[in-house]
Amino acid sequence: MDAYRGLGVAYYPEHWDRSLWEDDVVRMRELGLDTVRVAEFAWSLLEPRDGEFRVGWFDDFLAICERHGLRVIFCTPTATPPVWMQHDHPGILNRDREGHPFDGPRRNYSYNSEEYLRFCDRIVEEVARHYGSHPAIVGWQIDNELNCEIAEFFSDGDHAAFRGYLRDKFGTLERLNEALGTTFWSRTYSHWDQVRLAGKGLHGSINPHLELEEKRFFSRSAVEFTRRQVEILRHHLADDVWITTNGLFPNLDYDALMAAGLDFITFDSYPNFAFDVGRSATPDDMLDRAWSWNLAWTRAISATFGIMEQQGGAHGWTNRMEAPMPKPGQLRLWSLQSVAHGADLISYFRWRTSPMGLEIYWHGLNDYANTPNRRLDEVASFAREWEALADLRGAVSEAKVAVVKDYDNEFDASLDVWHGRVARQSEDAWFRATQRSHTPCDFVYLGSATAETLARYDLLVYPHPAIMTAEASDLLRGYVETGGTLIFGARTGYKDESGRCPMRPMPGLVDEWAGVRVADYTLVDRAHADMTLDCDGDLLPAPVFNEVLEPADDTTEVLARFTADHYAGGVALTRRRVGEGAVYYLGACFSEDMVVRLLETCGVASPLGDVVAAPPSMEVAVRAGAEGDRWLFVLNYLPQAGAVVLQREVVDAFTGEPLEGSVEVPGYGVLVARL
Amino acid sequence: MDAYRGLGVAYYPEHWDRSLWEDDVVRMRELGLDTVRVAEFAWSLLEPRDGEFRVGWFDDFLAICERHGLRVIFCTPTATPPVWMQHDHPGILNRDREGHPFDGPRRNYSYNSEEYLRFCDRIVEEVARHYGSHPAIVGWQIDNELNCEIAEFFSDGDHAAFRGYLRDKFGTLERLNEALGTTFWSRTYSHWDQVRLAGKGLHGSINPHLELEEKRFFSRSAVEFTRRQVEILRHHLADDVWITTNGLFPNLDYDALMAAGLDFITFDSYPNFAFDVGRSATPDDMLDRAWSWNLAWTRAISATFGIMEQQGGAHGWTNRMEAPMPKPGQLRLWSLQSVAHGADLISYFRWRTSPMGLEIYWHGLNDYANTPNRRLDEVASFAREWEALADLRGAVSEAKVAVVKDYDNEFDASLDVWHGRVARQSEDAWFRATQRSHTPCDFVYLGSATAETLARYDLLVYPHPAIMTAEASDLLRGYVETGGTLIFGARTGYKDESGRCPMRPMPGLVDEWAGVRVADYTLVDRAHADMTLDCDGDLLPAPVFNEVLEPADDTTEVLARFTADHYAGGVALTRRRVGEGAVYYLGACFSEDMVVRLLETCGVASPLGDVVAAPPSMEVAVRAGAEGDRWLFVLNYLPQAGAVVLQREVVDAFTGEPLEGSVEVPGYGVLVARL
Amino acid sequence: MDAYRGLGVAYYPEHWDRSLWEDDVVRMRELGLDTVRVAEFAWSLLEPRDGEFRVGWFDDFLAICERHGLRVIFCTPTATPPVWMQHDHPGILNRDREGHPFDGPRRNYSYNSEEYLRFCDRIVEEVARHYGSHPAIVGWQIDNELNCEIAEFFSDGDHAAFRGYLRDKFGTLERLNEALGTTFWSRTYSHWDQVRLAGKGLHGSINPHLELEEKRFFSRSAVEFTRRQVEILRHHLADDVWITTNGLFPNLDYDALMAAGLDFITFDSYPNFAFDVGRSATPDDMLDRAWSWNLAWTRAISATFGIMEQQGGAHGWTNRMEAPMPKPGQLRLWSLQSVAHGADLISYFRWRTSPMGLEIYWHGLNDYANTPNRRLDEVASFAREWEALADLRGAVSEAKVAVVKDYDNEFDASLDVWHGRVARQSEDAWFRATQRSHTPCDFVYLGSATAETLARYDLLVYPHPAIMTAEASDLLRGYVETGGTLIFGARTGYKDESGRCPMRPMPGLVDEWAGVRVADYTLVDRAHADMTLDCDGDLLPAPVFNEVLEPADDTTEVLARFTADHYAGGVALTRRRVGEGAVYYLGACFSEDMVVRLLETCGVASPLGDVVAAPPSMEVAVRAGAEGDRWLFVLNYLPQAGAVVLQREVVDAFTGEPLEGSVEVPGYGVLVARL
Repeated sequence: MDAYRGLGVAYYPEHWDRSLWEDDVVRMRELGLDTVRVAEFAWSLLEPRDGEFRVGWFDDFLAICERHGLRVIFCTPTATPPVWMQHDHPGILNRDREGHPFDGPRRNYSYNSEEYLRFCDRIVEEVARHYGSHPAIVGWQIDNELNCEIAEFFSDGDHAAFRGYLRDKFGTLERLNEALGTTFWSRTYSHWDQVRLAGKGLHGSINPHLELEEKRFFSRSAVEFTRRQVEILRHHLADDVWITTNGLFPNLDYDALMAAGLDFITFDSYPNFAFDVGRSATPDDMLDRAWSWNLAWTRAISATFGIMEQQGGAHGWTNRMEAPMPKPGQLRLWSLQSVAHGADLISYFRWRTSPMGLEIYWHGLNDYANTPNRRLDEVASFAREWEALADLRGAVSEAKVAVVKDYDNEFDASLDVWHGRVARQSEDAWFRATQRSHTPCDFVYLGSATAETLARYDLLVYPHPAIMTAEASDLLRGYVETGGTLIFGARTGYKDESGRCPMRPMPGLVDEWAGVRVADYTLVDRAHADMTLDCDGDLLPAPVFNEVLEPADDTTEVLARFTADHYAGGVALTRRRVGEGAVYYLGACFSEDMVVRLLETCGVASPLGDVVAAPPSMEVAVRAGAEGDRWLFVLNYLPQAGAVVLQREVVDAFTGEPLEGSVEVPGYGVLVARL
Repeated sequence: MDAYRGLGVAYYPEHWDRSLWEDDVVRMRELGLDTVRVAEFAWSLLEPRDGEFRVGWFDDFLAICERHGLRVIFCTPTATPPVWMQHDHPGILNRDREGHPFDGPRRNYSYNSEEYLRFCDRIVEEVARHYGSHPAIVGWQIDNELNCEIAEFFSDGDHAAFRGYLRDKFGTLERLNEALGTTFWSRTYSHWDQVRLAGKGLHGSINPHLELEEKRFFSRSAVEFTRRQVEILRHHLADDVWITTNGLFPNLDYDALMAAGLDFITFDSYPNFAFDVGRSATPDDMLDRAWSWNLAWTRAISATFGIMEQQGGAHGWTNRMEAPMPKPGQLRLWSLQSVAHGADLISYFRWRTSPMGLEIYWHGLNDYANTPNRRLDEVASFAREWEALADLRGAVSEAKVAVVKDYDNEFDASLDVWHGRVARQSEDAWFRATQRSHTPCDFVYLGSATAETLARYDLLVYPHPAIMTAEASDLLRGYVETGGTLIFGARTGYKDESGRCPMRPMPGLVDEWAGVRVADYTLVDRAHADMTLDCDGDLLPAPVFNEVLEPADDTTEVLARFTADHYAGGVALTRRRVGEGAVYYLGACFSEDMVVRLLETCGVASPLGDVVAAPPSMEVAVRAGAEGDRWLFVLNYLPQAGAVVLQREVVDAFTGEPLEGSVEVPGYGVLVARL
Repeated sequence: MDAYRGLGVAYYPEHWDRSLWEDDVVRMRELGLDTVRVAEFAWSLLEPRDGEFRVGWFDDFLAICERHGLRVIFCTPTATPPVWMQHDHPGILNRDREGHPFDGPRRNYSYNSEEYLRFCDRIVEEVARHYGSHPAIVGWQIDNELNCEIAEFFSDGDHAAFRGYLRDKFGTLERLNEALGTTFWSRTYSHWDQVRLAGKGLHGSINPHLELEEKRFFSRSAVEFTRRQVEILRHHLADDVWITTNGLFPNLDYDALMAAGLDFITFDSYPNFAFDVGRSATPDDMLDRAWSWNLAWTRAISATFGIMEQQGGAHGWTNRMEAPMPKPGQLRLWSLQSVAHGADLISYFRWRTSPMGLEIYWHGLNDYANTPNRRLDEVASFAREWEALADLRGAVSEAKVAVVKDYDNEFDASLDVWHGRVARQSEDAWFRATQRSHTPCDFVYLGSATAETLARYDLLVYPHPAIMTAEASDLLRGYVETGGTLIFGARTGYKDESGRCPMRPMPGLVDEWAGVRVADYTLVDRAHADMTLDCDGDLLPAPVFNEVLEPADDTTEVLARFTADHYAGGVALTRRRVGEGAVYYLGACFSEDMVVRLLETCGVASPLGDVVAAPPSMEVAVRAGAEGDRWLFVLNYLPQAGAVVLQREVVDAFTGEPLEGSVEVPGYGVLVARL
């Protein structure tokens, strides 16, 4: 389903005197907003005591919305269990790995507490029954930011559910022991009762195969928790009312979450985090532009999507996070960054800055004082532009290059520091290089990918798939055989699905068709020279990890060799034609320069070069509609204005004026044009 | 009450063989000491088993003191519960927020354990009855360093007492929920049983309004604990025997503590902490001179006061704190630093270095070997100077400038990182600027201030009173109307007493009479230029936080404007005449240069410039007696000698010689002169 | 007993399909290996359920070994309790100081759990009975890496055993209270039930005398745990079968451990840790050469010894430790580093890289793929050289200089930050200076030293013996009186055996015969100038701690004076002739330059200067046989080749060729020659 189109804001009627409600709604409409989200933290209002429901609490507010044409996104309130519940039923609480329960302040519950699940079923049933057919409501949000703050769970319910999960998956203790490699260090289970999530480990050490299953289990727990709410909701909703949830967080397989019945995903976009006081800066920092990478992840889940929380002001909590007020232009810039990447819903967080709680510094569009300010002006102005982009709805971001991903490898990279180090390096290089060379780039998650999905791309890179399954290998080989180009980096395929290292040459399952074997390998340490590889005479960095390759035979071309230490002369980059396509193997992590070289070699760099010449400091993106309409976005993240050259005439999407030749993009400015 | 005048030392008869006692006392007297403090950690001696008292244990030692004319400060021994007590009654122990009890090594008890309170009542009653009328005893110290080491308490007794505290304060759950903003994130209490001190929060997050009440409660707990002991003691003491306690620590309202019945406060002054190995140094470090700021705090509690523990040697514990031996001259320098700021009692810590325990490196005047050393010589020499200063008793530090403070804002700044960041910046700037410009500066705590207190000062600065009450606003306005000058900095008045942010323009309650509104504001982040403000052509730094101001009307003068980014040209500093006085509002944190500029603008900089011209590296202070006598102190914290110029003839307080013109102050030296 | 001579490898039959066993054994033999270690983590195989034994599990593998002439080191499997055991008997688990139990992954048990000890007795009895007379087995390893990962124990069993240990040691509470200085801060015990290992302390503070006893207790626990296994084993083993254990870890007195019945010690040598990614590097880093210092410790325990785990490849865990692959030559270099320092057994870790578990990155000689690689080639080549060194067996490392050590001071330095700071500084200086000046250096542990042991050395240095006993003082004085030279550094003798500071002048028990008293002292802080001392006109650094000395009389020569601050002119270095020898006292920590100066002054620097002139970057060592045979080792830790000059003809130990004059040592190369 295409994402709902709307321009909205988060609102908390419970935070304000009722006398303010109508004025607020009227002003939202005047500002150009058409949607409002409510109720995600309202459980203690809706059920002030066990079984004592006040679900009609939002009736009056919804009536006002209906009267003024403001559409409503209603939420299930399960992200914040009421205090009475945790006091009377402490078993609902999540615990840390050592067993300490969390008192608050939110998301402090366990997805696997049977008690909590019963409470959730009941409140979701109550609100769905009461509001499921309310005419003002266009969609629902499940819970709020699943796995935010904490994505690990160690309540008694979690230990029991984990046992059940493993029993379902492996059937017998023998298979479980085999998969988890428990022979190592005498960790063999001899009875199912012994199976639990890992406890406190010496220096935090945990069997990595167990930890990988833990992460899959944590993800499954969130998915099943969501599915349970979706099922109750669907029973009560009209067909055209959609369901979503918001935010992207760790230990969660979003392919599986979508499959639990969501219509589209929404992201919470706060690029201002890039400017937090005390955040360590690197000379080469991409700052708020880095949020474009999160948006690429979002649209990998649903091609068009929503922003359930779009930065509306400075943010921060009383106990951590200190951020500046966005500069003039940034709210619009970040809104259009979301749009450029595929957002059809933009909902600001929040209408008015909270007068209380941990989030008094998480500024809304309105200040505490509720008086006019420049942020409101900027959003009002953007709202008019938003109208001009109405037929953008459903248009998808255009990219011929994609980074291949999968949750097993993401989970593994988050627990295995060797895997994590190579993954972070190359992810960063691909992000920087595609951004600066104006090469739009998608993510493709293998969990939901098909041959058709892959065939949309001229180039795929799967940087370091340590875990490689036969299915993945076959799917990718098929992509290459039918004409695709695929790049692997070092550390491909040395692990199986359990994160074990089977007895076979690297790069494992892909070695035959990639046409290489790894002869020697090493992490790059401080005693190494800065390793480079020689690519037709150009020396390009080969950071973090190096593999000396052995081409299988002369169908494997050698494209580059290492230049230093005992690796000097060793093969570092190969290419092999496979069917109609080609597979590259880089025996290293990717550097930004190396990625640019590969994009050029593969002929996929800067696909919009015939339309616009922009400086590397600006982002270039295109959304394309089903009818062939295309919109060009050029985003300037710097405070300084800069010039772009339009190579042919385009039409300014907001003014309708033709544009050609040199055009100035103001500091924090965005050019949007129809192609 | 003026502070007791004495030159003393801490002594632990229980650490030494009885055969040493008399020799020690004789040598104390020979050194020039007249006072000794005993018994603050002696509970296990006085009550070796539950209910088995040996309170006469100190009789023999006190007899020796009496014989040799050494006056005694006796302590209640409640800072260190005996091991038998914590073993048999573990409920007396303080716990951390996760519930883990503290085994030791001291101050590991809860102020709110009913069991502990009963044990304390009994031992205090026993010692008071036994020693209350002892002729050698001149005063009593309650416990030792309340809230040192830890100032948070989470025993069962604390949870229960906190509930009682809130019930007393708010009366109903409705008012409690309102004050704590529990609607936020569904934390509404529906029964008093649910009310507790916060438990383990996700990433340490706690409702800030609850946390503010926790801090007030922790303070009240210490105060009530003290009051209970004072009441028992008073029942047994002669009228001229005073009661005090020692040290300044977090989460404690010293106005309230004084009101519990103390006669004056004593501070424990260890300026040598400035030289700890591994302490991070800044280029602009004030080192031991920074302790003058603590002394200003101390005299805000009682104008003349005592130093119950004055640095007597190198300090350190076996597990942390590594400090050098004070250099020749520093012990005297730091003693006179205490005197210059108002100390009438100087008691060194400790007579002889401990042969055992965590504090074997907390050196006393005597080394382990009990042989002569240069520290003893230095103190003997100082003791002679001390005699020459006898009529200084009761003279108060002279200052026409004061920093306004209050504990609510201090507590809030310690839990709210936004508040804390601005508070630290400006506190530091005011300290440096007043020190270097030789502008003596007091603290005024609003909790005990009256119109009369304030009227003593030409200039008050209340740098960042985030929490502003109507009472405070009225008191300050009265000060200004009657001729005072008052300076506010950014972030004034945006919170109420609960730390919530009410719906009103900033700077809240003072906006009308300060004549400004805040139009825009931001934390200064790394993407900002170094912000300066233009003050009649001079560019002065405006660090950390900026507010663009809107003058209410033309009765508000604009004194400076911002110079960079989108704030360029915005109003940054205003002045408004109110009645006979004036109020300034700075829309920024204070920089040292800005403070100097303000001191000059207000005509209060360097009030002793007609007496002495000293380099910025020296501190200048004056104490003034009730009879008009005045003593000048010039303190040199550097190892290098330096010259000062006495602009008129003064009399050296130690030699009686007249001094005028250029005089050299040796490295670590101090000049004391009668004016 | 001389150490067993062998070239071996660790092998885990339980990690591989049985079909691989014979091929692996055959290839080990082909590689030149003669020994294999097995079974140290196999408990869950040997006893899959409580009391259900499968001890014959290794029979088939041992039969293969026997058939191919591969000798076996068998291990007791007690380092990894099976999961069933910890699940059914959680009391076996070690806990942290706050009481949280450790779930895993190994070494998570308590040495003092009565339950665990019964389980251990039973399994050791079972394996000893079954394998004790197996012809393939040449020796046994007890447990694995005692005190690795964690060396503190707080289970209920440990608390009880600690009480028993103190009761045995002190007999009465009075003596216990006296020794632990419990009068300090009222920590007096009034009943034995109150005596426990310290619990959670405020800011981690613990009575240091208690903590010192804790460390002695932790050591004794490991020793008694070992003794118990040794006794069971001895009952079943033939006389020529030896027993050892492996690794050097904290809180363990290896003199006492040897006395529990070990025949020799083995070390686990992983010099590649020096190259871990993220390890902080200093400009003056000795990198892998630093492991020679560990080997000096090892041979202090047994003059010839084994390496039970010799680096066989890159190492790392999934959750921490990221290391490069050793460069070509380094495996051989590190093997010969072990040999040069006295190793007669070199056993690589491990045969093949683990396919599972936390150690998938702890590479064996074989890669996962089990295909040929350069590490196997390098070991094969080294195996041939190893054969050429056959008659080296039992030859001992030659050194005329030794650093005196004792476990009481090591334990104390690990808990007392003042002690630790001086100890680390001087240890480092002695290591660097002896290495760079080619002055072979031993350790001598006083716990096992006699007058004869000491008499082997021309120079002893006891850098900072804070704790000095009468026995140690007498032994050392005897060494000096009979002609030895001894150097003390600052902080000698100010503590007694309990870590208390008795009332006597420093340097305590040695002051009389060392002929000095300490007049003043200080940690060197940032406010000090860089302190140097003037040694006949040369200025040498005197870092970290300074003591101004007073010579007792003119039999004490003054050799150097301080040059800066108020210490300028103060005596810093003295020498006193005592009997036939001399004692030096340095009132400072040692700098590398100072050590070189002292080595030269004492005429013990570079004793092999007449044999070889090597650059400071290479290590020079000699092993000498009982028959007068001597082997010279020159080790080059750098990647660059370097030249040495042989001052007389020697014979290359591998080629049999004569060598004289300039010879090149390749990068990572080693020259071994018979003298």
